Amino acid sequence: MGRELVGLLGEHPDVGIAFATSESEHEVLGHHAVPLETAEGRWSDVELVFSCLPHGVSAPVVERARDAGTRVIDLSSDLRLSDRAVYGLTEVARPVLPDAAVVANPGCYPTAALLTLLPFARAGLLDTTRPIIVDAASGVSGAGRSAKRELLFAEVAEDFRAYGVGNVHRHFAEITQHLLPHTGPADVVFTPHLLPVRRGILSPVHLPVRQPMEREDGERVLLEAYAGEPCIRVMRGAVPSLRDVVYRNRVALGVVSVRHVSRPMLTVIAAIDNLVKGAAGQAVQNMNVMLQWPETRGLVC
Amino acid sequence: MGRELVGLLGEHPDVGIAFATSESEHEVLGHHAVPLETAEGRWSDVELVFSCLPHGVSAPVVERARDAGTRVIDLSSDLRLSDRAVYGLTEVARPVLPDAAVVANPGCYPTAALLTLLPFARAGLLDTTRPIIVDAASGVSGAGRSAKRELLFAEVAEDFRAYGVGNVHRHFAEITQHLLPHTGPADVVFTPHLLPVRRGILSPVHLPVRQPMEREDGERVLLEAYAGEPCIRVMRGAVPSLRDVVYRNRVALGVVSVRHVSRPMLTVIAAIDNLVKGAAGQAVQNMNVMLQWPETRGLVC
Amino acid sequence: MGRELVGLLGEHPDVGIAFATSESEHEVLGHHAVPLETAEGRWSDVELVFSCLPHGVSAPVVERARDAGTRVIDLSSDLRLSDRAVYGLTEVARPVLPDAAVVANPGCYPTAALLTLLPFARAGLLDTTRPIIVDAASGVSGAGRSAKRELLFAEVAEDFRAYGVGNVHRHFAEITQHLLPHTGPADVVFTPHLLPVRRGILSPVHLPVRQPMEREDGERVLLEAYAGEPCIRVMRGAVPSLRDVVYRNRVALGVVSVRHVSRPMLTVIAAIDNLVKGAAGQAVQNMNVMLQWPETRGLVC
Amino acid sequence: MGRELVGLLGEHPDVGIAFATSESEHEVLGHHAVPLETAEGRWSDVELVFSCLPHGVSAPVVERARDAGTRVIDLSSDLRLSDRAVYGLTEVARPVLPDAAVVANPGCYPTAALLTLLPFARAGLLDTTRPIIVDAASGVSGAGRSAKRELLFAEVAEDFRAYGVGNVHRHFAEITQHLLPHTGPADVVFTPHLLPVRRGILSPVHLPVRQPMEREDGERVLLEAYAGEPCIRVMRGAVPSLRDVVYRNRVALGVVSVRHVSRPMLTVIAAIDNLVKGAAGQAVQNMNVMLQWPETRGLVC
Repeated sequence: MGRELVGLLGEHPDVGIAFATSESEHEVLGHHAVPLETAEGRWSDVELVFSCLPHGVSAPVVERARDAGTRVIDLSSDLRLSDRAVYGLTEVARPVLPDAAVVANPGCYPTAALLTLLPFARAGLLDTTRPIIVDAASGVSGAGRSAKRELLFAEVAEDFRAYGVGNVHRHFAEITQHLLPHTGPADVVFTPHLLPVRRGILSPVHLPVRQPMEREDGERVLLEAYAGEPCIRVMRGAVPSLRDVVYRNRVALGVVSVRHVSRPMLTVIAAIDNLVKGAAGQAVQNMNVMLQWPETRGLVC
Repeated sequence: MGRELVGLLGEHPDVGIAFATSESEHEVLGHHAVPLETAEGRWSDVELVFSCLPHGVSAPVVERARDAGTRVIDLSSDLRLSDRAVYGLTEVARPVLPDAAVVANPGCYPTAALLTLLPFARAGLLDTTRPIIVDAASGVSGAGRSAKRELLFAEVAEDFRAYGVGNVHRHFAEITQHLLPHTGPADVVFTPHLLPVRRGILSPVHLPVRQPMEREDGERVLLEAYAGEPCIRVMRGAVPSLRDVVYRNRVALGVVSVRHVSRPMLTVIAAIDNLVKGAAGQAVQNMNVMLQWPETRGLVC
Repeated sequence: MGRELVGLLGEHPDVGIAFATSESEHEVLGHHAVPLETAEGRWSDVELVFSCLPHGVSAPVVERARDAGTRVIDLSSDLRLSDRAVYGLTEVARPVLPDAAVVANPGCYPTAALLTLLPFARAGLLDTTRPIIVDAASGVSGAGRSAKRELLFAEVAEDFRAYGVGNVHRHFAEITQHLLPHTGPADVVFTPHLLPVRRGILSPVHLPVRQPMEREDGERVLLEAYAGEPCIRVMRGAVPSLRDVVYRNRVALGVVSVRHVSRPMLTVIAAIDNLVKGAAGQAVQNMNVMLQWPETRGLVC
Repeated sequence: MGRELVGLLGEHPDVGIAFATSESEHEVLGHHAVPLETAEGRWSDVELVFSCLPHGVSAPVVERARDAGTRVIDLSSDLRLSDRAVYGLTEVARPVLPDAAVVANPGCYPTAALLTLLPFARAGLLDTTRPIIVDAASGVSGAGRSAKRELLFAEVAEDFRAYGVGNVHRHFAEITQHLLPHTGPADVVFTPHLLPVRRGILSPVHLPVRQPMEREDGERVLLEAYAGEPCIRVMRGAVPSLRDVVYRNRVALGVVSVRHVSRPMLTVIAAIDNLVKGAAGQAVQNMNVMLQWPETRGLVC
């Protein structure tokens, strides 16, 4: 995530990196690298701080930077469920970002799931007597670059597996907490899987709906909700694959009306690049809005 | 499928291949190869015929072989929904296989889905007021060896996509027809995906259940249903990945009780090798039972 | 190649695509698409024509465009061994490109091999009493997008194979013809291999040299030959991998002095993206020089 | 290597595993697992000990087992260059294996290279005034299962790289030492590469020969040298790919006569499974010969 962010910021025409710190990725930071202690003393020198620190470690650093009067985008999960930060799903948070002191950048899976579900939830279309099923599959970069045996090529290639089955993954709470205000209580079943690819998340989302809806009806809900959105692509009569989104700050969505069921359901296929719109790209998008710059500056959507 | 079957039969200690026919795979058949017309004249020379012909082409050939008095295992989908053949899900059909004239070998996805669902259905545990979700992902060998652009390495590698979304895949009807007698009407949503691996199917199956069930309760349902089954492995406290099943005539099943839902649900992860237990291996297993040989002869389970 | 070129030209700030034609890739061409016959009548409307036609088909079309007074860059191999075209290895051909009517864009393997070998050849350092060995490995995109069985995911994944072994690949003649003037007669052994990756060529080139040379000596030959070259990266004390070059119009070169041999040898590892510096990117680089624009405009090197 | 060996021994009809020890792979050893100290006290209980200990650690353990009067096959590189052990390239060492106390099992790359080169060397056909080039590429399992960043899926997939360039890899000395007695002094250039596959080594070997040789001439040298060999497959008019050898205890060899060179050369493509004939399989083959059992018992060649 940090590498991707440094890469994006390096290409951003209006950004200068003042300093950066990392325990394991010095070669990425180049001449920007400083020790963490040095960084801690320099918060007030900069306009904005990005934290890609590990979950659990990030919050106190974010707090100190904020206390020094610096705005912060936190890419960890520490503040995503907290009211101390604006939850930075850009398309939702846009109005409040220009005044935000601290932004909690959303997780990759929640970005895909929430941008799929919210338009239907807000339109009162979800039938919450039946469960919403989110079976998401991610490439390995979602797990970072630490050298774990289960992420070795020899383990991942030619394999596919579910993990965090049964709503035990951290992102489950992130999805449901931000969905709840729009749906009321609803059962969500979220199951992440590990794909033998480097980047990208594909997620079928199965939505029980309160009235019969054809594909075009579902597409219309999304098209109206996302009219003019530069980073959301609603496909018509097709569903996306990873290829449509990797290396882009984009969510691609495709709708299908489920045949042969007694009560109406839609399936929406959502795709994002977990490192871009699912992490570093959305952080840049948030920065652009916070600083009232053009929203997609430095991004390929 | 045909290649895999020829490979398995070649290793089977009690089988001799009398003749074989193929339009595109002569090199696999070796000295067994004969033209289809020759084969058509020789049905009565053999004890059993396997048909791996394409869907739509297979049924008339199967019929002629049967009319010649020869028993047939049809690996196409032509007879899977028909009462002219025994549906050869071995663990279910075992009692009637020894007398079967024609066996319709199940599809790969239905084998995984039905062996997951049937024990819960028969025990009356499924809550059919909520939908059953089957999000299955298969390696490319499920699509055969024909040279289609969408199966090129350059298209499949680093990608993941859903296809047949919305219950339009042929296997949907195969799953529901064989489930219906045990559940009564039930909504099933079946979504196949294409994985960048060569072999294997992994399928999360989300089951609404009529009463609260812990993981152990779900495992017990499967363990009791499949006690003594040589080709079904019920994992305890774990879920399978492709690695647990490839090159084996095995279904591996792992159960999780879903947390944080208001009405009880289980998620079962099912894994099979689509070419073995999902096709050629199950055909050999069926042959063994039909001929009253030891059921797993020639198979690695 | 054509897809990649359309992509690069679409991003080029100074290029407008007037029209384009393809039998199989209409969706890539979009509103630029015209039938070939229409294109044939419009050569004189444009400043430059790129031909990505198949080998054997390209030459007559190139000729007609040139006869219409239009400059042409031919990405096929038809004219690479002919004196009717300038051989467009940009770093070598730069002085004559501004006046060239027809440029034969080099093949991917020859681009890597020649840019490795020429500096040593010109410096008189190659020992031609011993053979030069070029064992190059390419990703599948080198073979185009036609649906051939040997390019299916199921065939390529987890495999690696040599093809065109023994100097029978078309690129052998391209390498030797353009090397000969600088070395005199020399034995070259060129063996291409197919890698299970989508893009990129990595090529160890083993060079017998006439005098003992340390790594630094070899690096110096390349650094001097390529001083100021924007698209050639000579690594110091390291060798490149595909990761260093994919999606870039770059050749990366790393030198090693071979230990434990009685007569001196260097091994140079060369890496390029076969579709960029090995094809479409070099074509754009050539166009820029032909039109006396900044050489890397529209390119990432 | 150890996992593969335990797997092969578990399937071997005449072998019982008395005990096994490992720091990191307890789950593979199952009920055979004992602490190393326990194993050290039990050498004399068993007929044969296999050591898969790391290089540097293995030799003293091997020595203690041998001192306890137990025969040993050492899969580390510790004794491969030493006269304290028989170098266990089975096809060469067969006559002396039945009396060997300690066998040094060859490395994966040397197995492929030596079985390619020795027949030509012994026949006096190699022209040692020109270098022999061995450009070998291996799947990741050659590097073991330790969790190193450079072996992560995210690093290996879609990449290809050379390592140990310039004759600095440990296997260089192993190749040359065992070749020297048959060739006299000769320059060998050995360059290993890392492939994005799990298993298998493919190695083009370029041989300068002393007289013009057609493909058939080269094939004849190998066919005569390996007549009756169960684990060596000399292809006629074709070259192998990884697919021909993975999961088999087999070396596959294919010969091509190089065109368009002034002095005669052959290219031989050699393929093996690095974990089978390149490690554990050859160890089992050696065991079979040491114990005067049928040579391929327990092996698929």
